[in-house]
This record gives sequence, structure tokens and C-alpha cells, in this order.
Amino acid sequence: MTYPKHVKIVEVGPRDGLQNEKQTVSTDDKVTLINKLSNTGLQVVEATSFVSPKWVPQMADNRDVMAKIEAKAGVSYPVLTPNMKGFEAALAAGAKEVAIFGAASESFSQKNINCSISESLQRFEPIMLAAKEHQVRVRGYVSCVLGCPYEGDIATSKVADVAKTLYDMGCYEISLGDTIGVGTPLKAQQMVEAVTKSIPVEHCAVHFHDTYGQALSNIFACLQLGISTVDSSIAGLGGCPYAKGASGNVATEDVVYMLQGMGIETGIDLDKLLVAGHFISSVLGRKPVSKVANAMAN
Amino acid sequence: MTYPKHVKIVEVGPRDGLQNEKQTVSTDDKVTLINKLSNTGLQVVEATSFVSPKWVPQMADNRDVMAKIEAKAGVSYPVLTPNMKGFEAALAAGAKEVAIFGAASESFSQKNINCSISESLQRFEPIMLAAKEHQVRVRGYVSCVLGCPYEGDIATSKVADVAKTLYDMGCYEISLGDTIGVGTPLKAQQMVEAVTKSIPVEHCAVHFHDTYGQALSNIFACLQLGISTVDSSIAGLGGCPYAKGASGNVATEDVVYMLQGMGIETGIDLDKLLVAGHFISSVLGRKPVSKVANAMAN
Repeated sequence: MTYPKHVKIVEVGPRDGLQNEKQTVSTDDKVTLINKLSNTGLQVVEATSFVSPKWVPQMADNRDVMAKIEAKAGVSYPVLTPNMKGFEAALAAGAKEVAIFGAASESFSQKNINCSISESLQRFEPIMLAAKEHQVRVRGYVSCVLGCPYEGDIATSKVADVAKTLYDMGCYEISLGDTIGVGTPLKAQQMVEAVTKSIPVEHCAVHFHDTYGQALSNIFACLQLGISTVDSSIAGLGGCPYAKGASGNVATEDVVYMLQGMGIETGIDLDKLLVAGHFISSVLGRKPVSKVANAMAN
Repeated sequence: MTYPKHVKIVEVGPRDGLQNEKQTVSTDDKVTLINKLSNTGLQVVEATSFVSPKWVPQMADNRDVMAKIEAKAGVSYPVLTPNMKGFEAALAAGAKEVAIFGAASESFSQKNINCSISESLQRFEPIMLAAKEHQVRVRGYVSCVLGCPYEGDIATSKVADVAKTLYDMGCYEISLGDTIGVGTPLKAQQMVEAVTKSIPVEHCAVHFHDTYGQALSNIFACLQLGISTVDSSIAGLGGCPYAKGASGNVATEDVVYMLQGMGIETGIDLDKLLVAGHFISSVLGRKPVSKVANAMAN
């Protein structure tokens, strides 16, 4: 069995994490968090969303966040842009990378954005064109890759189709998200195998939620297939909107601990990561949702 | 990659779990827990310890527990017996299976029981003889197989030596315990590979603590080597005596969820398991330390 020598971690806490926290975090605390994260050695820190504050009030300060962070050379700060209005705002705020998203579940797409998967992807075409024109990189997320809160199991072929469409549209990397965290390792491998039939594995990332405690075993299983990009969230920020009180995104600290134990380079300083995780957890007034953070606090 | 078709879960919550909880649980609640567990389809439920109440007051009611549980046909109820006095008391209480233990770390052995590993194993010889005479099965635990709180890394050869000694003494199964939960999947595999050079893999079990969140990925990694016996603790009972507030034994619910998702038979009814976990957690006045239990409670 071979494993990648280096794994790139895509830190999604400041965006995917904080937008799912009930408590709104101040702009200054967000900026402090992002700066602490970019000083750990992380190469990618998802910074904010350019989405209507009506839907995601937690990200209403997106422009200020982008203006205030100390952009570090070699670190990418992608932002989520659900539509052209968001893309233009992101561009005006200086974003060099954006992210778009599609669901692998028709029911999820209908319930969440009131259109089919295919329609939702077509709506991103103007963003892809504008991104190309402005040399902005676009990352594509696929949600519900191992299950949907409305329709249960999702066919791996459906995931592969959506991933391929986003890739063909010009996304440089496709992040495969187990949005509700129901996946287990063999199903995760089957899904990745289906996707990598048509997309080179080095352009795929995995994005696991730890709702059922399976995230690290799923990541380990996917590393065995050559996956070398992993999304995670500092201090496990985020929670799960589909299961109250349950865990959300896998904690970056726990992923980095596992990778270090496997001798896989991440370029990340775990001690600095722990400091960043304790910082944002203290802002939120609770302990980090990271077993490594809690074990090492003793 | 092949996986075992069936995995036997050794439920250690009522003993290993509860003896590490600060709160003492009443005999009736212990008995209720054990009966609920043996009705889930579990084949092995570790019931109690026959150890001095001076050291482990939580298990002082060992005789009463053994007398009151409804012993179910086909279910084994091993008890921990650290010495001949404990063995005799276990025998008198009707135990058909006992467990003994050795450390893979000299420092741990010295600090915990004030003798060398080799001396500690010699002390079990009278138990092995008496067990044979009374047709009592003996399970052997090896602690600190992936790290020691006092000396750090442990050589896999040391683990293999201790495991082999216990096996040669007559233990029918050797449970390899990552007592402080520091292990990661490749190190877990290297350790199991070292042990299974001299002990058939079907006589080995793995016993992971989730202190650093690595337990399930370690279990998944060991299944790939043919390991088909896994220790776990209902609701993650136990905590970690070496890291205050950290997780201890991996939760049975989370292990069974993973195995079911992999299509591996356990013979266990997950719903009944969840009921047992919520029962003992409510006795302790807290939520289960199981992500599956918390996600499914919603």
C-alpha cells in the first residue's frame, strides 16, 4: 500500500465552519483566526462567502474580512461565490480564488436552491467565464456524495457525473463532500474510485464531516487511493445543521495528527494549529471539537 | 483488499469503562446495563474485575454483579483477575472466563505494579494452571502497545514478545491495547504485523482508545490485516486517566456503525446498542461519548 508523501489541507473553518455556528463572530476575531491559520503553514484558508447576508448573516462582513487579513505569500484564500453577484463582489474585494458548489442529490438541490442539479451547474457558467477572464481559480464542491438528508443513499455514478461536469467547466479541484457525515470507509473508497475514473486523483479533494465519527477512517481509506487534498475545519468548527448537537467538519488538528503519525508531510505546525483552535473556541466560549486539542490541553 | 466477513466485538464498558469513571454506579444499574448489552447480540461482555476494592472501589460489588446478571446462553462474561486471590474469588462467583494483563512498557509496569514485565507475567502462572484445571478460558491484555505515558514510543518487538509470552502461557486471545490512544493507522498496522508473526491473527484482538480521535481509523487499518476481534466500550465509557477530560475507549456504537457500513457482520442490533448507551449515560448524567449515539438521538 502506498500513500501520498505530501497532503495539502484546505482549511474551511473560517467559512464553512463559522457560517454554521449560531454565534456570530466579530470581524476582528475572524481576521485574527485567519492570520493565525495562515501562519501555521497551511497553504489554503477559505476566508468567507460572498452570499446574501439575508441567507448567511455570519458572512455579511466578507469585504471587511478580505480587506483586513494579512495575505501571506504562498497562501490561497478562496471565497464561496454562489452566483455572479457574489463573484463580482469577491473580485472587487480582491479574491484570487473562488469556490462554487453542486449537489450530487436532486432532492437536496431542489430543497436547498429550488432547482435541478443541472440547472444549478448551468448558473455557474458566467462565473467560470468571468473567472477565466480575470485569472481567478475556481474550486468546485460536490455535496451529499455519500448520502442525502432527504433521499438517503446516492449513486456513485451521480457523484462522478456532477464532479466531471464541474471539472469540465474549468474547476481546478473538485472537493467531494460527505455533507451529513454518514459515510464509511469502503463506501468512501467506492465513491472516489467512481470519480477518479474521469478526473485525475490529484485534482480531487475529500471533505468529510465527523457526524458519525467516521471522518478520519474515511480519510485514511481515501489516502490509500491516492487522494492528497483534504478539507478540514479548525477546532471542528461548524456543527451539523441536520443533526442538532452533532459534530460537523472533521477537525484540522485531528487530521494533521493522523498524517504526522503516518509520516506524511503537511508543512503544518501542529502546535500553532492548536493555538488557533483554542483561540476561536474561546471566542465561541467552548472547548474545541477536536480530540487532539482536548487531549493535548492536559 | 479483503476484510473479515464477521467481526466479534468484545464489550468492555461495564468493566474497563466503569472502573475509570469517577462516579460509582449502583450494582442494579450495572446489572441492567450488562443485561441490555447481552441482549443486543454481543457475544462477549466483560462484566467486572476481581481486584482489591482498595484500588478499584468501583468494582467492589463484583460478586453481586456476577450473581445478579441474567447469564445469556452464547454470551461470555469475562472478568479481570490481577492475581490468584482475584481468580479464586472469580471462580467462586461462577466466572467461566477471566482476563489477565501485561504491559509492553517496562516503565509502565514498574510505575503501575512495581515490578518488571517479566515478573508480572510470571505471577500469572498459577492463574493459568488453576484456569486449566477448572476449564476457565483466559484472555490476555497487553497495554501500551503504541505508546507509554512514561517512555513514549514502544518497539513493536517488545509488544510481540509480551503477546507471545501470554499466548504461550495459554491465553486463547491477546488483546492489543493502545492504552493512551496515541496510535495512528500505519503504526497500528506495523504493530499488528509484528505480533502476528508469532500469533495467528484470529487469536489477536485490538483495543483502541479514542484519546486523539484515531481509534476508528486504527481499527479500519487493522481489519485490513485480518483482525476480526475488536474491543470497545458502550457510550465510550471510561475516559482517559492520562489526559483529563479526554476520551477513553472507542465507543461500541461508532465501531458497529462503521462495520455495518462496510457490510461486515457483527450480529449486533445497533438500535438496542444505542438504548443501552443512552441508559448508562443517563445514569452518569451526561451524553454518550459516541458520535453515532449523539447524531442518531436527533
